[in-house]
Amino acid sequence: MQPGQMAYDKGTNIFSPDGRLFQVEYAREAVKKGSSTIGIKYKGGVALIVDRRSLNRLIEPKSTEKIHQIDEYTGCATSGLVADARVLVDYARRVSEEHRVNFGENMSVEMLVKEICDAKQQYTQGGYRPFGTALLVAGCDELGVHLFETDPSGALVAYKATCMGIGRAAAVEVLEKDYKDDMEFSEAMKVGLKALEAAIEEEPQADCIEISVAEEGKKFRRLSESEISGLVGKE
Amino acid sequence: MQPGQMAYDKGTNIFSPDGRLFQVEYAREAVKKGSSTIGIKYKGGVALIVDRRSLNRLIEPKSTEKIHQIDEYTGCATSGLVADARVLVDYARRVSEEHRVNFGENMSVEMLVKEICDAKQQYTQGGYRPFGTALLVAGCDELGVHLFETDPSGALVAYKATCMGIGRAAAVEVLEKDYKDDMEFSEAMKVGLKALEAAIEEEPQADCIEISVAEEGKKFRRLSESEISGLVGKE
Amino acid sequence: MQPGQMAYDKGTNIFSPDGRLFQVEYAREAVKKGSSTIGIKYKGGVALIVDRRSLNRLIEPKSTEKIHQIDEYTGCATSGLVADARVLVDYARRVSEEHRVNFGENMSVEMLVKEICDAKQQYTQGGYRPFGTALLVAGCDELGVHLFETDPSGALVAYKATCMGIGRAAAVEVLEKDYKDDMEFSEAMKVGLKALEAAIEEEPQADCIEISVAEEGKKFRRLSESEISGLVGKE
Amino acid sequence: MQPGQMAYDKGTNIFSPDGRLFQVEYAREAVKKGSSTIGIKYKGGVALIVDRRSLNRLIEPKSTEKIHQIDEYTGCATSGLVADARVLVDYARRVSEEHRVNFGENMSVEMLVKEICDAKQQYTQGGYRPFGTALLVAGCDELGVHLFETDPSGALVAYKATCMGIGRAAAVEVLEKDYKDDMEFSEAMKVGLKALEAAIEEEPQADCIEISVAEEGKKFRRLSESEISGLVGKE
Amino acid sequence: MQPGQMAYDKGTNIFSPDGRLFQVEYAREAVKKGSSTIGIKYKGGVALIVDRRSLNRLIEPKSTEKIHQIDEYTGCATSGLVADARVLVDYARRVSEEHRVNFGENMSVEMLVKEICDAKQQYTQGGYRPFGTALLVAGCDELGVHLFETDPSGALVAYKATCMGIGRAAAVEVLEKDYKDDMEFSEAMKVGLKALEAAIEEEPQADCIEISVAEEGKKFRRLSESEISGLVGKE
Amino acid sequence: MQPGQMAYDKGTNIFSPDGRLFQVEYAREAVKKGSSTIGIKYKGGVALIVDRRSLNRLIEPKSTEKIHQIDEYTGCATSGLVADARVLVDYARRVSEEHRVNFGENMSVEMLVKEICDAKQQYTQGGYRPFGTALLVAGCDELGVHLFETDPSGALVAYKATCMGIGRAAAVEVLEKDYKDDMEFSEAMKVGLKALEAAIEEEPQADCIEISVAEEGKKFRRLSESEISGLVGKE
Amino acid sequence: MQPGQMAYDKGTNIFSPDGRLFQVEYAREAVKKGSSTIGIKYKGGVALIVDRRSLNRLIEPKSTEKIHQIDEYTGCATSGLVADARVLVDYARRVSEEHRVNFGENMSVEMLVKEICDAKQQYTQGGYRPFGTALLVAGCDELGVHLFETDPSGALVAYKATCMGIGRAAAVEVLEKDYKDDMEFSEAMKVGLKALEAAIEEEPQADCIEISVAEEGKKFRRLSESEISGLVGKE
Repeated sequence: MQPGQMAYDKGTNIFSPDGRLFQVEYAREAVKKGSSTIGIKYKGGVALIVDRRSLNRLIEPKSTEKIHQIDEYTGCATSGLVADARVLVDYARRVSEEHRVNFGENMSVEMLVKEICDAKQQYTQGGYRPFGTALLVAGCDELGVHLFETDPSGALVAYKATCMGIGRAAAVEVLEKDYKDDMEFSEAMKVGLKALEAAIEEEPQADCIEISVAEEGKKFRRLSESEISGLVGKE
Repeated sequence: MQPGQMAYDKGTNIFSPDGRLFQVEYAREAVKKGSSTIGIKYKGGVALIVDRRSLNRLIEPKSTEKIHQIDEYTGCATSGLVADARVLVDYARRVSEEHRVNFGENMSVEMLVKEICDAKQQYTQGGYRPFGTALLVAGCDELGVHLFETDPSGALVAYKATCMGIGRAAAVEVLEKDYKDDMEFSEAMKVGLKALEAAIEEEPQADCIEISVAEEGKKFRRLSESEISGLVGKE
Repeated sequence: MQPGQMAYDKGTNIFSPDGRLFQVEYAREAVKKGSSTIGIKYKGGVALIVDRRSLNRLIEPKSTEKIHQIDEYTGCATSGLVADARVLVDYARRVSEEHRVNFGENMSVEMLVKEICDAKQQYTQGGYRPFGTALLVAGCDELGVHLFETDPSGALVAYKATCMGIGRAAAVEVLEKDYKDDMEFSEAMKVGLKALEAAIEEEPQADCIEISVAEEGKKFRRLSESEISGLVGKE
Repeated sequence: MQPGQMAYDKGTNIFSPDGRLFQVEYAREAVKKGSSTIGIKYKGGVALIVDRRSLNRLIEPKSTEKIHQIDEYTGCATSGLVADARVLVDYARRVSEEHRVNFGENMSVEMLVKEICDAKQQYTQGGYRPFGTALLVAGCDELGVHLFETDPSGALVAYKATCMGIGRAAAVEVLEKDYKDDMEFSEAMKVGLKALEAAIEEEPQADCIEISVAEEGKKFRRLSESEISGLVGKE
Repeated sequence: MQPGQMAYDKGTNIFSPDGRLFQVEYAREAVKKGSSTIGIKYKGGVALIVDRRSLNRLIEPKSTEKIHQIDEYTGCATSGLVADARVLVDYARRVSEEHRVNFGENMSVEMLVKEICDAKQQYTQGGYRPFGTALLVAGCDELGVHLFETDPSGALVAYKATCMGIGRAAAVEVLEKDYKDDMEFSEAMKVGLKALEAAIEEEPQADCIEISVAEEGKKFRRLSESEISGLVGKE
Repeated sequence: MQPGQMAYDKGTNIFSPDGRLFQVEYAREAVKKGSSTIGIKYKGGVALIVDRRSLNRLIEPKSTEKIHQIDEYTGCATSGLVADARVLVDYARRVSEEHRVNFGENMSVEMLVKEICDAKQQYTQGGYRPFGTALLVAGCDELGVHLFETDPSGALVAYKATCMGIGRAAAVEVLEKDYKDDMEFSEAMKVGLKALEAAIEEEPQADCIEISVAEEGKKFRRLSESEISGLVGKE
Repeated sequence: MQPGQMAYDKGTNIFSPDGRLFQVEYAREAVKKGSSTIGIKYKGGVALIVDRRSLNRLIEPKSTEKIHQIDEYTGCATSGLVADARVLVDYARRVSEEHRVNFGENMSVEMLVKEICDAKQQYTQGGYRPFGTALLVAGCDELGVHLFETDPSGALVAYKATCMGIGRAAAVEVLEKDYKDDMEFSEAMKVGLKALEAAIEEEPQADCIEISVAEEGKKFRRLSESEISGLVGKE
């Protein structure tokens, strides 16, 4: 903490003397504690790879799923406060559905992500607290394949590959070194799993990771355990 | 308490510098003081087992019932502030009833639980206090048997078996050791009652526990005292 | 007071670190200062017995009446802030009347009490102060005879017999010792008056107590002074 | 002041640890500074007697009148903040008039006083300040003769005789000693004027007191100066 | 300041322990700094006499006029914050005009003044600040000649003669000594100008004072400079 | 600062113990930092003269124009926060336009200025901050030529000549000495430019000042640079 | 920081004693940290030149675009909080589109910028925080070529050339020295790129800068990389 920080960090509607919004920065801390999540693009597609090692064998496996479908062609992983994330994912589903009903076509991924981020931005300017969650959105539309990260401030960035949650720095280092444009799916998986390994600091096991993909001309889908086993085996 | 915690723990709309919402965490403390409650799944069903040892013989027995029916196929136990719990249970009943009236079918258990949790989440982001209560929801629908726990943050987790309230840690230890998938009802009861015993630190008596079950194809129902006596006897 | 309590006791929407709502607890203190009030069930009925020793002979006797009729079959005594109590009793009357008009039948006592308690709970979660009053509600309906106590948190408990206001502990001790299920009216009165005596620490006089009863198949009614004299005499 | 009182006395929506609402108590202090006002019942009527010794001969006498008519059969004296009092009296007039227009009959005195008190109670529970005024209401209706005192909390008490404002304690002492039920008017006036003398600590002069009466079958009316002279002379 | 006063003087909705509203009292301080203004009744009329010695010869004389007409028969002088005063005068004009349009008759002066004061009272009870202005209202209606003073609390007093603004105490001393009922206009002017002289501590000059009168059967009007010269000369 | 001032200067709805509104006074400080602006009346007209020496040659000259037309016959200069000023000028334009559309005639200058000031006053009484800007309004209507200054409190004064912004005191000294009623335009310009010179402490250059005039029977207009050169030359 | 500044810098609705709004000034600090952005006019057009050196090769190039089209003839660069900026740009697009739909013509650039700034001003006067973003708007309309800068206070300035973001002071120094009216496009680019070089303290590379232009009679457009290469080469 810088000296005097505590005088400006109790509300979203207070700038610090150097122009920072501490409450938004604190909300990002909640995001940093989320499960390690890799997003990576490849030729004609984009994958989300999430660590779901469960700490509790009494939890239903389905309840630990970390990737949520938004509409037929788009899904996301979330990091941070799980209730906040669920609310935002539901909001995204509603926005997408309404667009489809009103205009008879799918909403573009970027427009959808902007709607999510506008909702987030509003919570940074009023009397509320910011959403303590980040979304990594993967989807396809007529403009191609997309991988967006949204943060608690309502900012959004389009990535080729990125990581959020625990171990982000280590994973990004791997991605920056190994990522290449237009990799084949299998190669991208190798890079992505290597990045995940760096993040979680152990070798990922097939039954402890979750992978979903958005690919051109296909629907957003979750890979089966056997598919994942194949990928992990290949590594 | 960590140093400086008191600077960030007076409102739900304030993140601490490390991204925590202390008011939500304090609300969870209210939950920890509730009656010991076991939820456990078995082959084709799920049971709620609650400690209802009354401290006061002047209280009407019915008034100490700890398990509340939500709709024909779903019920819940609650832990924490009883008035908050009643408000949430009534809300759940209303939501379920409206769904049935509007769509001519029962609401799925997961959808119902999400509605409860969305209401909870809203109270963590505005100017209110969070609900100081957790619900352990048991129910059946076309997708199977469900056991959900909701917490004051609005998070929800699907369990195979769990415990909330006093003695949670001890009971969970038993469950983690003894729980098996697809146990028969009687075996599950043995495990559940053993977990309850660990939680309350004495042997449960038939007239001091309450058990309700949701089973496939049957309505949510409360076990009679004689049924419970049989189970306790078996242990 | 526990150390640090004053940091968390200024608003209803602040949990203390151990999950308590101090404002609600403080409101209960107002209740403890109310007139001693006994509620007691007997075979086919329930009675409210209230200490109305007036401190001021200039006050109109009717103005010191402590028991209020809610509808034809239900009444209550109140303890705590008198203006708060009057507002809640009026609310209960309105709710009951509207039910009767809308559905052509009397509201069940439990449903009525829940409505009162829901109103109370709302005042513990928003920006208001809690109601500083408790109600001891006695009534009959098709489900039988009921005696409910509501507290400032919005919690409600059904009792066989209880006491609120000054001397509660002493009175409850008597009730726990002497109360029996299905006593006849006269025996219940003996127990109740003994409990009242314990609470007020002197022998109750016929002209200083007020008794109302709700009995199966009869309307809620206030006992006449001569009836009360008879009962006090019997003791 | 008790230690720590200042931590709980800045808002109407904060209970002190012992269940008091200090802002309401402080508002009562404003009432204690009002003009000495006696209310006294007698056979078939009730009188209000107010000290109106003017401190300023430049003030129009009519402007120092202390008793306000509410409707044809009811009037009141007020004590405390004069603007608050005026607002409440106007409110009472409006409520009474609306009742008469809507139901074609006069509002009962008790119902009218309850409406005033409900308005007062609301200001003790929200974000406002309480009304800093008490009303002593005298009136007749089909149920008889009434004398009610309302206080800033919204509480109301029916008196046979009472005093509010400066010197209350001394006047009440006189009333408790000398008041008898069903006194004739002239005797009641003697008692009332003696109580006023005790309150203001000097002998009341005919031109410095104001008397209004509500009597069965007659309209609420102000006594003329000559009538008052006669009464003061008699004393 | 009394000890501890600063703990209770920051909001209009906080009573001090002795039942005072400091914000209202502070608003009265703003009134005390206004121009010296005399109001005085005489046989068949009432006059307002205001000191308008301008501190700045660049200000348009009309802009320093201190007396404002409300309707044909009523006008007022104001003391305190000039913008607050203008808003209240405009409010009074609107209220009077609406009454005339709705009921086809002039509003009585007292009713008009009450409306102004009710608006003021509201600002002492909510989250606003009180109006920092007092009005001295002079007018005629069927009930006679009226001189009312309103203060920031919303209180109103009818005077025979009074002074507000700088030098009030000195002027009131003159008025209390010299004022007689039913003086002729010229005599009243002598008394009023003497009071003004006491207030401003120098002899008033014809071009530095402003006089308006409300007289029975005539419209509210401003005296011409020559009329005023005549009066000042007479003194 | 006087002792204790900081206890009362954080909100517009707090009077200081001596009846001042510090937030309004602080807003006036913002006004004092504005460009030096002279307003001066002459025979049949009124001129606004503003210092527009630009500090930055990269700014578009038109963007530094300091005088804004409100309607055909009225304009104003502003001093203080430029965004606040723009909002108020736009408000004035809208008010004037609506009057013209609704009543088929131009709004009088005084009525227009009052509307601006009423808007300002409202911001001094609620939960907002006052407008940090003053307007010097010049205009003609059927009642003649007008020069009004409005300040952050919502007060308005009609001047013959005045100055606002930097150097006000020095300029006013010149105006008080040299201003004469009914000067010809050229003479008024000499006085006005001399006052501006006193304010800005250097000789005004034709390309660094801006002059607009409102004259009887003509539209509000900005003087061309050559016209200004002629005037400056004359000086 | 000046002494005592921290007492006045926590809310947008608090003026400091010297008439400053610190929260607005702090919001400007957020703007100073944005990417270096040059705006420069030339004969018949205006260009925006932005540094887009990416810190992260994993970010999609399109996602780092710094210039946003508002409508066919207008675009802007932004500096400060990116989510705030996106919200304002979307607002501008909506305002412009609505104008086009309602009036069948393009909105003038100045009117559009004023709408943006009015929205910003509102957030400096209520309970919100100011927008932490500045916009540099370039556009053409029937009145010519425009370059406006808006700041968090809602102020707007029309420039011939300017810089915002990191290195503003250094770039402005270059512009003040080298800018000439009516330069040809190529010469303006030389000046602009030299200013950018001063701001970013290294020679700009074609693939790390973004240039868009608004030119008379043409649509707002982004220069291609080859066009930029040509310009950078020329330098």
